Amino acid sequence: MSFRDDGAAALEWAARYLERVGDYPVLAQVEPGDVRARLPASPPEQGEPFAAVLRDLDEILLPGITHWQSPRFFAYFAVSASEPGILAELLAATLNSVAFLWRTSPASTELEGLTLDWAAQLLGLPGGWHGHIEDTASTSTIAALAAAREATGRDVVVCSEHAHSSVDKAAKLLGLELRKIPADDEFRLRADALDLSDAAAAVATVGTTSTASVDPVPAIADKRAAAGAWLHVDAAYAGSAWACPQLRRSQAGGDRADSLVVNAHKWLFTPMDCSLLWTSRPDDLRRAFSLVPEYLRTSEEVDSLSEYGPALGRRFRSLKLWAVLRCYGREGLQARIREAVRLAELFEGWVREEPGWEICAPRSLSLVCFRREGSDEENEAIVERVNRSGELFLSHTRLDGRYVLRLAIGNERTTEVDVRRAWDALRAAP
Amino acid sequence: MSFRDDGAAALEWAARYLERVGDYPVLAQVEPGDVRARLPASPPEQGEPFAAVLRDLDEILLPGITHWQSPRFFAYFAVSASEPGILAELLAATLNSVAFLWRTSPASTELEGLTLDWAAQLLGLPGGWHGHIEDTASTSTIAALAAAREATGRDVVVCSEHAHSSVDKAAKLLGLELRKIPADDEFRLRADALDLSDAAAAVATVGTTSTASVDPVPAIADKRAAAGAWLHVDAAYAGSAWACPQLRRSQAGGDRADSLVVNAHKWLFTPMDCSLLWTSRPDDLRRAFSLVPEYLRTSEEVDSLSEYGPALGRRFRSLKLWAVLRCYGREGLQARIREAVRLAELFEGWVREEPGWEICAPRSLSLVCFRREGSDEENEAIVERVNRSGELFLSHTRLDGRYVLRLAIGNERTTEVDVRRAWDALRAAP
Repeated sequence: MSFRDDGAAALEWAARYLERVGDYPVLAQVEPGDVRARLPASPPEQGEPFAAVLRDLDEILLPGITHWQSPRFFAYFAVSASEPGILAELLAATLNSVAFLWRTSPASTELEGLTLDWAAQLLGLPGGWHGHIEDTASTSTIAALAAAREATGRDVVVCSEHAHSSVDKAAKLLGLELRKIPADDEFRLRADALDLSDAAAAVATVGTTSTASVDPVPAIADKRAAAGAWLHVDAAYAGSAWACPQLRRSQAGGDRADSLVVNAHKWLFTPMDCSLLWTSRPDDLRRAFSLVPEYLRTSEEVDSLSEYGPALGRRFRSLKLWAVLRCYGREGLQARIREAVRLAELFEGWVREEPGWEICAPRSLSLVCFRREGSDEENEAIVERVNRSGELFLSHTRLDGRYVLRLAIGNERTTEVDVRRAWDALRAAP
Repeated sequence: MSFRDDGAAALEWAARYLERVGDYPVLAQVEPGDVRARLPASPPEQGEPFAAVLRDLDEILLPGITHWQSPRFFAYFAVSASEPGILAELLAATLNSVAFLWRTSPASTELEGLTLDWAAQLLGLPGGWHGHIEDTASTSTIAALAAAREATGRDVVVCSEHAHSSVDKAAKLLGLELRKIPADDEFRLRADALDLSDAAAAVATVGTTSTASVDPVPAIADKRAAAGAWLHVDAAYAGSAWACPQLRRSQAGGDRADSLVVNAHKWLFTPMDCSLLWTSRPDDLRRAFSLVPEYLRTSEEVDSLSEYGPALGRRFRSLKLWAVLRCYGREGLQARIREAVRLAELFEGWVREEPGWEICAPRSLSLVCFRREGSDEENEAIVERVNRSGELFLSHTRLDGRYVLRLAIGNERTTEVDVRRAWDALRAAP
């Protein structure tokens, strides 16, 4: 194997993929088991050339890929792995640093701290917070709630009925009781129904998964201050919008958080996985996670980021975020985020003007919730039909008991033409 | 930015790095804060060329990298990111699949199942186990113990005093009581001291971090069968050796595990992170983690691997392991593992023959525990001196109260010349 030759082939594969990604059916057009059935049941005895891997990637795996990089991926929250981020992942894998202690990769540990500080400045978060990277918001929330349990000695978590399922999962993992508070008619936690007197933590969501609604963080912060509970702000999707000062309305009260998570792999153009967790109470995170056995003792008195979360081994995730922040710059990030919001606003307008269609929740940032007049089954059929066509991929939720379509914009390749194609396909669905 | 041009520059950087990695000081020769002090305190306003990232990687970050890819990295457990694995990470980042449901990336979900089956065949594990990938063994252990708690309704975990600190961390996270059993004089759990009557789980370690000792899994399996406890086998390091039939002695009883973890990013030549978790009781893992909110409901009745562990978002980690298994083949993997064991055996012989030096634990696989006659301080000074020299990097542990040096072999670039250089440097230390 020649690394340079195989690498050039892999790079060419990647370049051609990114050029043509808009041409593929967005949602994989395969049935369960199709991909696996075409692959050998056992590993080879002798090594094969890397070209064989690339060939099978093209012929067997590609039809089974749902194209998250497609400009017409509108499901869940749309993401982008930008080019600088992709190349940084190549470099991180080459270095293969495992930064569980400062000394096992000083550059990785220090760049992670610096990059989180850069991101905090970009998003307008308070100076002086401690930041580190977890794989996903699920893990960031586990870390935050473990710290809350440690700090308060209590075992109740409170969130809105619209909080992400990762809060349920974290509470179950940690053995915490989860109480869900009803939302108001705009899908925001009803602070008047909030009782934190015995709570370890309140989770406030800034940008819920169903509608991107924003919980009233200032009111929640007031209540938790009186009760001595931890405040965790889940801004996994919406937090990236704070890169634009004109999109910071949802940040109100966020400066009073004990912990706050933003997923750079969602709307900061960074490849999976890169969940940014900041805390104003780093000592509590360390108390929840720090354990130093003999084989990890060193003479340096420095922070080891593995003391702030569940995992010991840590790969060099900050490199890709650093590359994106540098190659796009503040202005480049702002322009991309503003454009996504503009496209969502445009789409919202088309839905509002179209007879027989309706907007189902106040549009927040780049997510539009809507439906066609008619039954849930009819709307579900529209989603299934357009997704099956491969023309676009969108997902759904249920609001006030009704099936609702969600169109999420966020891929940096998405243009007005793509959004128009999506709308045409949706309207054309019988 | 031109992806092809920047990509070619990144690839050339990676190729030259791998060619010269043996020339760098293995342990980063910087002081805390050195790297960060040389970087700007704020992100740029305008985007910069990717070449600027590569330049700073060379000039500022590289001196702060501890070179895990170096052939003279002998600390902890030595790892390798092989070339096919590195290139597969480039491809995975390009695709940026987020496989939290089957439909969000059928190819990723199905390749993960297949690749874990391939790996199970390679290692001689029972057919029919369910396998998936977590980021690290820490997370795999959390998943296993959460399933044990769910399955048994109990809240006690038992392991040896030599179990990895991730077991402590997992128990604390899950709110489980951890009981540590003394080890025998060869650092193996003393099964006669094992009482599992109220235990949710026993963790048996096959390849402890300090000495790579192997707990008596068959005896532990007998006891847990009587007590109805879960058996989790932590073979994070040693399990890869099972690729060689002649190195399967440590596998005895492993087929009776409820869950078993092997880190492909340790000794299967796969870049971080790739922890393989198999279970014979997949329903219990799902009961511990499965939650399907409305926005994740789909019409397919298929496995979603996010239902088997803490995180929802999952990147396409199987691609790199699949690439390694294919490009190296069974024979290529076996040859590399056998060579590491041969080098460790050789080093062990040199220590045994050298007056004034001693072996401190039975050598297991590719890890040698040894020390020079004299005080702990003198031995610690040897480690600090050779590590500071940059010539090699090794770590230490404490056995029976004494400071002991650990030389771990596992990087695929390590040759007999490298091991000889390490031994010469160690003996030359004053």
